Amino acid sequence: MAERLDPWSNDAVSDYEHLFAEFGIKTLSARERLDHVYFRRGIAVAHRDFDAFVNALRTRKRTYCMTGIASSGRMHIGHMSIIDFVRFFQKQGADTYFAVADIDAYVSRERIQTMEEAKRYALENAAHVLALGVPKKCVYVQSRMPARYYELAFEISKKFTENAFRAIYGHLNPGKMAAVFLQLADILYPQLDGPRIGIVPVALDQDPHIRATRDVAARLPYGFVPPASLYVKHVPALGGPSSKMSSSDPNSAIYLDDTPEVVEQKIKKYAFSGGRDTVDEHRKHGGNPDVDVAFQLLKYFEPSDSKVERVRESYASGKLLTGELKAVTIELMKKFFARHHRRLPAARKIAQKIVYG
Amino acid sequence: MAERLDPWSNDAVSDYEHLFAEFGIKTLSARERLDHVYFRRGIAVAHRDFDAFVNALRTRKRTYCMTGIASSGRMHIGHMSIIDFVRFFQKQGADTYFAVADIDAYVSRERIQTMEEAKRYALENAAHVLALGVPKKCVYVQSRMPARYYELAFEISKKFTENAFRAIYGHLNPGKMAAVFLQLADILYPQLDGPRIGIVPVALDQDPHIRATRDVAARLPYGFVPPASLYVKHVPALGGPSSKMSSSDPNSAIYLDDTPEVVEQKIKKYAFSGGRDTVDEHRKHGGNPDVDVAFQLLKYFEPSDSKVERVRESYASGKLLTGELKAVTIELMKKFFARHHRRLPAARKIAQKIVYG
Repeated sequence: MAERLDPWSNDAVSDYEHLFAEFGIKTLSARERLDHVYFRRGIAVAHRDFDAFVNALRTRKRTYCMTGIASSGRMHIGHMSIIDFVRFFQKQGADTYFAVADIDAYVSRERIQTMEEAKRYALENAAHVLALGVPKKCVYVQSRMPARYYELAFEISKKFTENAFRAIYGHLNPGKMAAVFLQLADILYPQLDGPRIGIVPVALDQDPHIRATRDVAARLPYGFVPPASLYVKHVPALGGPSSKMSSSDPNSAIYLDDTPEVVEQKIKKYAFSGGRDTVDEHRKHGGNPDVDVAFQLLKYFEPSDSKVERVRESYASGKLLTGELKAVTIELMKKFFARHHRRLPAARKIAQKIVYG
Repeated sequence: MAERLDPWSNDAVSDYEHLFAEFGIKTLSARERLDHVYFRRGIAVAHRDFDAFVNALRTRKRTYCMTGIASSGRMHIGHMSIIDFVRFFQKQGADTYFAVADIDAYVSRERIQTMEEAKRYALENAAHVLALGVPKKCVYVQSRMPARYYELAFEISKKFTENAFRAIYGHLNPGKMAAVFLQLADILYPQLDGPRIGIVPVALDQDPHIRATRDVAARLPYGFVPPASLYVKHVPALGGPSSKMSSSDPNSAIYLDDTPEVVEQKIKKYAFSGGRDTVDEHRKHGGNPDVDVAFQLLKYFEPSDSKVERVRESYASGKLLTGELKAVTIELMKKFFARHHRRLPAARKIAQKIVYG
C-alpha cells in the first residue's frame, strides 16, 4: 500500500498488486529501503524474503547476489537497473555472480541458430556488463563453468514433476525446460560454496524462476537457503509505458552500443512525451512525468535526487517544456554513453577471455 | 530371417522380428559378422548401419565405439556382453568411450537419493569395467567432463519438440528428459573431435536412445554422422529367459562382486535348468540348452566354440545331465571370478581417480 504514496511511483505498480497477493510477493517496507536511488524512486517495487537478506547484510553474515542476462541480442539500457543493483549489493559485501546466459539464449530462443551465435552475443553482452562496472571476477558464461555446476542443473531436473513444471511455466517444451534447469543452477550454485541467503534482482516477469528455485532449493540435499528476490522495473521502452523494447525494432530501445549521437537522435525523435499538444496547454496544465520517457530515463540515470525532483516539479507545473526536458536527459545520457564507449575496448578484451578462454 | 537358422539362437530373437521391421532395425548379414564369438553365437542380434561401420573399419577410416552403464546399483554379469564388445571394437581400432552414467542414474531413478550415492556406485562400477579390461583412458563418469560436453547436452535439448520426445519416450518427465539429453551427448560427444561413424553396442531396449540420437545428430550444426548400433542380448537372469535380473533380489543375478564361492552356490541353487524332471526322461529326450542358464553362461564366457558345441550336443542328446553341465559352467565361472577379483583392488584405485579426481 505504501507504494501508492511513493512520489516516484507510476501507474504500473498498482497493476501488479493483485498479483503480489496471489503469489506471495511483498511490497517494500521502509526498513527494507536501502540507501540507493532505486529504492527512493519506485524502481525496486517488490520482493520475496528481502527482509531476511537485509538482516543478513546488517549483521554482516555471508550473503550473495546473483543475476544475469540471456545473450540473445544487442544489450539495451533496459538491463541497466539490474546491473546497478548488482554493483550496489557487491559493494554491500555480497559475493557476486553475474551470468551471461549463452546456453539459455541458444536453447530457449528459436531465433538463435547456433551456440556460436549465442557466444558472439555473449562476448558483446559481457563487455557491456564489465564496462558498466561489474568486476570481472563476478562475470561468467554458462558454457564455461566447472562440471559441478552442470551436475547441479541435472540434480535440479529431478526435483520437478511434469505437473509442477507445467503449473509454473505453462509448457513442457524440452529445450526451454532444459534452459530452466540451468537458470536455477545459476541461482543456487553459489550455495555449494556454503549455504547462505542470496538476493536475485530481476524483473517481475522472472518471478516464475524465483518461485521454482525456492521450491527446489528446499528439496535438494544441501541445506540450501531459499534465495530472496528483489523485483526491479526495467527502464521503459522509448515508446512509453505501454510499449516494449524489441530487438527487431532498433528505434524501440537505446542500445548500449549506440553512439552518443544515435542516443541523442533516438531521444529527440522516439522518446514518448508526457507533454501537452501545444505549448499553451503545456504551460497551463503541465506535463505528465510518469509517462514521459525522457523523465523516466532521468530517474534511472541521474544520481542527484534533488535534481530529479526539481525537473519533475518543473515539468509537472508546465514550466519545463518537452524539448527542454529532453535536452536535460540528452546531456546526461550523452555523458553516460561517452564514458561507456571509452570503457568498452578494454572490457571487450576481458570479455573475450571470459567467453572463449 | 537368417537368424532363425542360427544354431546359437534362442526363441527370443524371433519375438523381436516384427519390431525390427517396424523400427528399421536390421538383422546381421554374413558380411557383418565379424570374428568374435558373439556374432557366431546369436548374442549380437541386430543393428542399425552396422554395415557402414564395418566398411569404415575395413577401410581403416577413423571410427569410435561408445557405450556405458548407469551406476544405479551393483553391477552384474548382464553387462558383460556390452563390455566385451567395447574391448573388441577398441582392439579393431575404434576410439573408445565408456560412460559410467552417474548423473543419469541419479536423475532418472527414484531409488537413488543423492548424487553422492550415485557416485559410490559409479566408483564400484568403474572398477569392474576396468578390471574387465576396458583401458582406463576410455572410462569416464558423466559428472567429471569438460564444459563442452554439457553444452552439447543442452544443444541436444533444443532439437526436441514435446511431441517428438513423447513419441519416442512415452513421457515428458523433467528429470528423465534431462537424463536423455545427457545420454545423447554421451553418444555424440566423440564427434566434436571430428565427425565420424561410431558404433554403440547396447541392449535392444536402448533402441529409443539410438533412434533419438540419429535423429538429433542430423539436426545439429556439426555434420555429425548418425551413429550405428549393434544390439546385444544380455546374459540371462538366473531364473531363465522369462525372468529379469533385479537389484532387489540378489538371487536373480550374479554380481561382479560376488565371490567365486557365492557364484558357485547361485549357479547350483538358482540357475534355471533346461533338463528333464527325472534322469531317465533326460537320458531319453535330452535337455533344452536354449533355456538352460548354465548353458547360456557358457555361450557368453567360454572362448572355445568347439567346447560350447560339444556341451550343447551332449546336453541336448541327454548324455550330459544338468548337474554335470552346471559343474562345467561353475569351473569356468569360478576361474573368471577369481581372476576378476585379483584385478579389482588395483582397478578400484584407478576408479577412485576417475570418479573423484
